[in-house]
Amino acid sequence: MKQNLGSLAEKLGGRVLGDTSIAIDNVASITAAAAGSLVFVEDPKNLERALDSSAAAIIAGEFATKAAGSKPLWISSQPRLTFARAAKSLLDSSGRAHAIDPSAIVPASVRVGRDVAIGPRAVLGEDIKIGDGTSIAAGCVVGDTVEIGANCRIDANVTIYSGAEIGDRVVVQAGAVLGSEGFGYVRDSHTGRYEQFPQVGRLVIENDVEIGANSTIDRGALDETRIRRGTKIDNLVHVGHNVQIGQDVVIAAQTGLSGSAIVEDNVIIGGQVGIADHVRIEGGAILGAQSGIPSKKVIRGKGVVFWGTPARPIREYLKELAYLSKAAHKDSRH
Amino acid sequence: MKQNLGSLAEKLGGRVLGDTSIAIDNVASITAAAAGSLVFVEDPKNLERALDSSAAAIIAGEFATKAAGSKPLWISSQPRLTFARAAKSLLDSSGRAHAIDPSAIVPASVRVGRDVAIGPRAVLGEDIKIGDGTSIAAGCVVGDTVEIGANCRIDANVTIYSGAEIGDRVVVQAGAVLGSEGFGYVRDSHTGRYEQFPQVGRLVIENDVEIGANSTIDRGALDETRIRRGTKIDNLVHVGHNVQIGQDVVIAAQTGLSGSAIVEDNVIIGGQVGIADHVRIEGGAILGAQSGIPSKKVIRGKGVVFWGTPARPIREYLKELAYLSKAAHKDSRH
Amino acid sequence: MKQNLGSLAEKLGGRVLGDTSIAIDNVASITAAAAGSLVFVEDPKNLERALDSSAAAIIAGEFATKAAGSKPLWISSQPRLTFARAAKSLLDSSGRAHAIDPSAIVPASVRVGRDVAIGPRAVLGEDIKIGDGTSIAAGCVVGDTVEIGANCRIDANVTIYSGAEIGDRVVVQAGAVLGSEGFGYVRDSHTGRYEQFPQVGRLVIENDVEIGANSTIDRGALDETRIRRGTKIDNLVHVGHNVQIGQDVVIAAQTGLSGSAIVEDNVIIGGQVGIADHVRIEGGAILGAQSGIPSKKVIRGKGVVFWGTPARPIREYLKELAYLSKAAHKDSRH
Repeated sequence: MKQNLGSLAEKLGGRVLGDTSIAIDNVASITAAAAGSLVFVEDPKNLERALDSSAAAIIAGEFATKAAGSKPLWISSQPRLTFARAAKSLLDSSGRAHAIDPSAIVPASVRVGRDVAIGPRAVLGEDIKIGDGTSIAAGCVVGDTVEIGANCRIDANVTIYSGAEIGDRVVVQAGAVLGSEGFGYVRDSHTGRYEQFPQVGRLVIENDVEIGANSTIDRGALDETRIRRGTKIDNLVHVGHNVQIGQDVVIAAQTGLSGSAIVEDNVIIGGQVGIADHVRIEGGAILGAQSGIPSKKVIRGKGVVFWGTPARPIREYLKELAYLSKAAHKDSRH
Repeated sequence: MKQNLGSLAEKLGGRVLGDTSIAIDNVASITAAAAGSLVFVEDPKNLERALDSSAAAIIAGEFATKAAGSKPLWISSQPRLTFARAAKSLLDSSGRAHAIDPSAIVPASVRVGRDVAIGPRAVLGEDIKIGDGTSIAAGCVVGDTVEIGANCRIDANVTIYSGAEIGDRVVVQAGAVLGSEGFGYVRDSHTGRYEQFPQVGRLVIENDVEIGANSTIDRGALDETRIRRGTKIDNLVHVGHNVQIGQDVVIAAQTGLSGSAIVEDNVIIGGQVGIADHVRIEGGAILGAQSGIPSKKVIRGKGVVFWGTPARPIREYLKELAYLSKAAHKDSRH
Repeated sequence: MKQNLGSLAEKLGGRVLGDTSIAIDNVASITAAAAGSLVFVEDPKNLERALDSSAAAIIAGEFATKAAGSKPLWISSQPRLTFARAAKSLLDSSGRAHAIDPSAIVPASVRVGRDVAIGPRAVLGEDIKIGDGTSIAAGCVVGDTVEIGANCRIDANVTIYSGAEIGDRVVVQAGAVLGSEGFGYVRDSHTGRYEQFPQVGRLVIENDVEIGANSTIDRGALDETRIRRGTKIDNLVHVGHNVQIGQDVVIAAQTGLSGSAIVEDNVIIGGQVGIADHVRIEGGAILGAQSGIPSKKVIRGKGVVFWGTPARPIREYLKELAYLSKAAHKDSRH
């Protein structure tokens, strides 16, 4: 919904230089900006392009104060963050309908909060609790006794197995599977056949976690899998049974965490990283894309980037790569 | 549907040596060929096996002309291609029913072309356009204002988010997710918490693109994600926000492309390749399986094969591997 | 359902020291054990913790016989296996309702065995056969002529393409796709465009196979893809067309097998492994996580662990890593 620049800035902080009454109805990149667009500039060298664009107003850092004049400037110490919040505010006010579609299957034992939306063809089990303002899209299947907090968004065709506990403001994108059975088998030493180890533990997803499309999160085997507050998980990520992920962790696409791995707070994990069973990644470590952490290893070092398989500090890894290239080249000329 | 060899060849090109009236009703490998089977031979050394098989007729290259006699031969300059087209013709003529299942949810605002099939339980949003001859299978969820061109095939349980634009003859296999929100967050420097950067851009999938099962394609953040004409994508592939993929690109299973990566025309990408953000793969390059391209790199070289992480020309990589093996072996004997 | 220790042990083997009449109604880890819990101890050093826990009874090896007294001990030569079987027995006896939900679409041509459960919104095609005791959960889409054996469990939102054959006691977790079209194209040398090679073969999944969430298994191109008896596949695994997987193979998450790969019996494959086309992994080999097997390679060696890309025996790989680290370090000090 359209809002004027002044009221947005009043809500989100920062100060406006210029006309606060100008109407904003969308966010855009500088290239695509049109009438009504809000854009942002972090790097001073993009300011001129923003001023020359069709944008209605610009969010920028302190550096921009001198440029006041041709367009309203919204000065913020974190322009990208302010831009993100403004976008959210513009979208939130769109006033979506919240209703339980008559084609959804919602047993009488389900306890539903206020302003809950349940999409067409969604199938809910028994004794589920759903908090205020949560939406569950078309085609979702939610098992018995699942608890979903307030203001969550569960997109289409998501499957949530029985017993999962999901906090507030959790986003789960389409096709993700939460609470599946982990990969644990016992081999009978007589017959050589594998039999399933019980996968009857819990899955707990805390507040503000976001999970990408077609990712899979297994429940605990006997105990629990837990993803803590604020952690963000991209598409096609695998989280095995009994994994513990801390707060404000970021995990890029196609990474996999094997059973009983522990990832502490504020870790950043690139795409296609492989974390074996019983690994511990200590707080604040950074794992480069495609790196691999072998079974039971401990990765230490806040702010240290690790790369390669087996993962080592990136400086060592780059040194090895450089040496190998040089030595191989020299060798081949003999 | 059964067709005779002569009419198939007339439609698809090439010339028949022998009985053109023979009836063909299936395609098969030489091993599995039965009565009515059409097989193909690219390598002259397989011709005898094909002649000895139960196949009704053989597609082969010029080399086979001398072998005329025991079976009809359909001579083609591209036997495998002619075989693929013959298979398509035999399957296409099977006359599938095209209907909108009464259990599908299709709002009045949806504009549906002729001969459109919408499967049971499919859920369509408002203001969708669907071109002639397109089928949308059971369990699909299609968001508002999505446009799907003509003669597309959307398999079961696919999710298409609002606003996606899909061209003609596009195939999307089961469970794929198109138009999900990309993985973009802004960290508040005061609280340390991540907040979503707006993911409100577009997704455009051009004509003749094919997308494998359970792959995920994110929409643009502010601008667009685009997959150009004729590109083929395998299963479980991840395409991040703002990615641009050119024409006739081939991407094997489990490969991931991070945000804003650019892949130009005619690139061939193996399985499990990782392409970081803002990478550019120039036209005609070939990326070996599991290779990794670090952030912002440019990969140049039409027809050059790259391998390893970080990816380098395969000749260099193999040289390094050979050197390392030799040096390590020598060292361990001291 | 609650059972007493004596009757469990009678059913599953082993002998009980102590009170056989004690009631068991759940399995647990030692840490989480409560009244009615059955726990197990493989390592003698955990026995004391188990005895001190709130568990009702303990499964343990011969070593525990001396500890008899404070709690009933169920002595077994394979404690973990006995525990797994006890868990299964406790869960199996829970007497789930088996019924065909009225909202499922089940054409008259479907042949359904006894005690079959078909969940809400499941969509079945024509001429399907379903064996006794099998359950198909909500949101599944099953194509025409699919055959599913007895006592299978197909979880929510699974898609099974037409013609797939599935044995007995097969488990398929949520979101998996079985029988999709493989990734095979022919490039027209004149136009440069890719056209699909026919993907009309079969998919056969034998008895006791288990497949994880969101995994994708392609059918054969002309012939068949086959997964043999007892093989277990984790989440997000890709199995390409014409792949042959032997008996009792274990494949961890996010591994991919390209077209026509052959994996023989008893192979163990870690997570994120890449197996290229036409590779053969001989019986009993072990592939470490993230290793890669290039096209057409043969991997030999029962019980030998392979690692790296290209995969080599792990002793060689570790030797190379150690040499490289040492040499690069030395070099950088000059």
